[in-house]
This record gives sequence, C-alpha cells and structure tokens, in this order.
Amino acid sequence: MESPEIRMKPIGVIRSPYREVSDSVPIQGALRPEVEGVVKIFPEYREGLNDLKGFSHVFIIYIFHKSATVKLRPKPYMDRERRGVFATRSPHRPNHLGMTLVRVLELRDDSMRIAGIDVVDGTPLLDIKPYVPAFDSARDVSTGWMRQYLEGERAPESGETRSREEWLHEP
Amino acid sequence: MESPEIRMKPIGVIRSPYREVSDSVPIQGALRPEVEGVVKIFPEYREGLNDLKGFSHVFIIYIFHKSATVKLRPKPYMDRERRGVFATRSPHRPNHLGMTLVRVLELRDDSMRIAGIDVVDGTPLLDIKPYVPAFDSARDVSTGWMRQYLEGERAPESGETRSREEWLHEP
Repeated sequence: MESPEIRMKPIGVIRSPYREVSDSVPIQGALRPEVEGVVKIFPEYREGLNDLKGFSHVFIIYIFHKSATVKLRPKPYMDRERRGVFATRSPHRPNHLGMTLVRVLELRDDSMRIAGIDVVDGTPLLDIKPYVPAFDSARDVSTGWMRQYLEGERAPESGETRSREEWLHEP
Repeated sequence: MESPEIRMKPIGVIRSPYREVSDSVPIQGALRPEVEGVVKIFPEYREGLNDLKGFSHVFIIYIFHKSATVKLRPKPYMDRERRGVFATRSPHRPNHLGMTLVRVLELRDDSMRIAGIDVVDGTPLLDIKPYVPAFDSARDVSTGWMRQYLEGERAPESGETRSREEWLHEP
C-alpha cells in the first residue's frame, strides 16, 4: 500500500488560558465547559467563516503541537491500564490530530470566541466543522473501557494534566 | 504568526463500495447508515487498535484525497446558496480533512468493519477516535443555514454526489 506524505498548513491559531500542558488542562473540553478561548483565523481563510452564524457548536480540529512522541499503548489519564491509542483521546497519537466540540460564544470576522476549550495556548488550527447532531451523534452507544469512569462506577485517576510527566502518561 | 508546514502519514486506508466521487456517495454517512466499509490499518499502527472492543462508534478522520482544490465559499450539496466553507462539510476545504462518525460492526486485529461510510474507496486514514457522547455531543444545539433542511422545512437540493461536477459544487 502506498503511503504518501500529506502536507497541511494551519488555518489559524487557538488562544487559551492554558499556557503549558502542565497547567491543569482538562482532558476534554466537556469537563470544563465554562473555560473560554479564541480561535483566530489567518487572513487568507477568513472568507470561510461566513455563514457560521446560527451554529451553536463546532468541532475544532488541531495539532497537539507540544507532543513529539507517539505512544501506541498509552495509559489514559482516566485509567489505570495501558490502552490502544485509537481507543483513547491521547495527544501522543500518530499524526497528533486533536478534535474538540466547543460552543460558539461570539463570531467575528477574523475569529470566534468559544467555550469548552481543552488545548494549550498557541495550538495550530487545521479545520472547523459545524456540529450537526443528525450527522455527529448516535444512539445505542457503548463506550468500552471508558464506561466505568463515565458512569461513575469507578473514580477516574485524573481529569486534567497537572505535570509534564502526567501529560506524557508517565508514572 | 508563524505558519509551519505540518506533515502527516496515513495510518491505513478505507475500503468502500463507492469507486468514484460520482458514484452517488452520500454527503454524510448518517444518510446511508447501512452502507458498509472496512478500515484497514497498516502493520506499524495495529497495536493502537487494542481496547477498541466495546466501543460501538468511532470517528474516522481522513483526507479527501480526490480533491485538489479549495473553495472558501462552496455551494453546499443540500443548499442553493454559497456558504463559507467552515459552515459546511465540503471536501474542498483547506487541508482537505474529513471526519465521519461510523458504527463499528466488527473489530479485527488489522481492521474494522464499519457501517455508515461516506467516502470513496482508497481514502487515506489519518486517525480513529472513540465516540464518547459525554465529550462529543451537546444540548441546545442550533444548526444555522442547515436547520431548514434538517428539520424538513425545505427539501435539500441533493443528498449525494451523482457527478464530478456536482461533487465540485459546479452548476
């Protein structure tokens, strides 16, 4: 199978109150829905923000730019055991792609003020997609190893990254 | 603002019954939930599939590899008017990143059989993320220009791409 290299360019940058990965960054935006950030779009892509008015939520897709490693079986922040990376949302994944559902607070010509941010300041933005429940939500969902933590059967080990070691899934 | 180039490598390939973009590909997987495909993972990343057992749904993130153009204000397939690309799910977007929520039918060591596929055969896969409603769904959602089509107030222009011209948003 051919495996050509793919090249991308950031379309903007995400501004956030989290300066470093050790700055108690929540492991998911939904865990801190009140924390605000700003998505700034570079001038050449601003025309693409048109018509986002009226969408309450968007997915932002970005690069986990602070990670330089790939861990195929990280220990998830919530968990006690190592898990296959594609069964986690770990930043230390092949291609380092991140994705967060955020609420749109204010749409401007060159930026969006958002809530529910979970990335460090300066994160490079690759894409914005409107959230459409008819496309992006499902029924009869099961959540594998996460279920015990999501349903309160077991307390998660952590819900935020408080040190560089924790962020790296190191003991 | 610095804007470094980002390099990615496919982690696998998506097999689908759609041979070409003109092959009546649904504009979203949710519109044809029964259509099956296979996500094949390259050997060096297979360890990452561990522990996906028990997750009923995943997001697949991939490259719209058939598109060589960027349209900042495409005419969406459903719609009659041009819209800012970040308010659409058009393939002709900066970075050509695609994302679809699919149902997992069968998990194998080297692949996943999935349902609800909306990409052409041979699409390069970049990432797999487990779908977690607590992270990836929202309440009190509004869907901007799409609402009229999603709620049946107006019939969408199209729900699939039946020609190369239609796929390119050309009249």
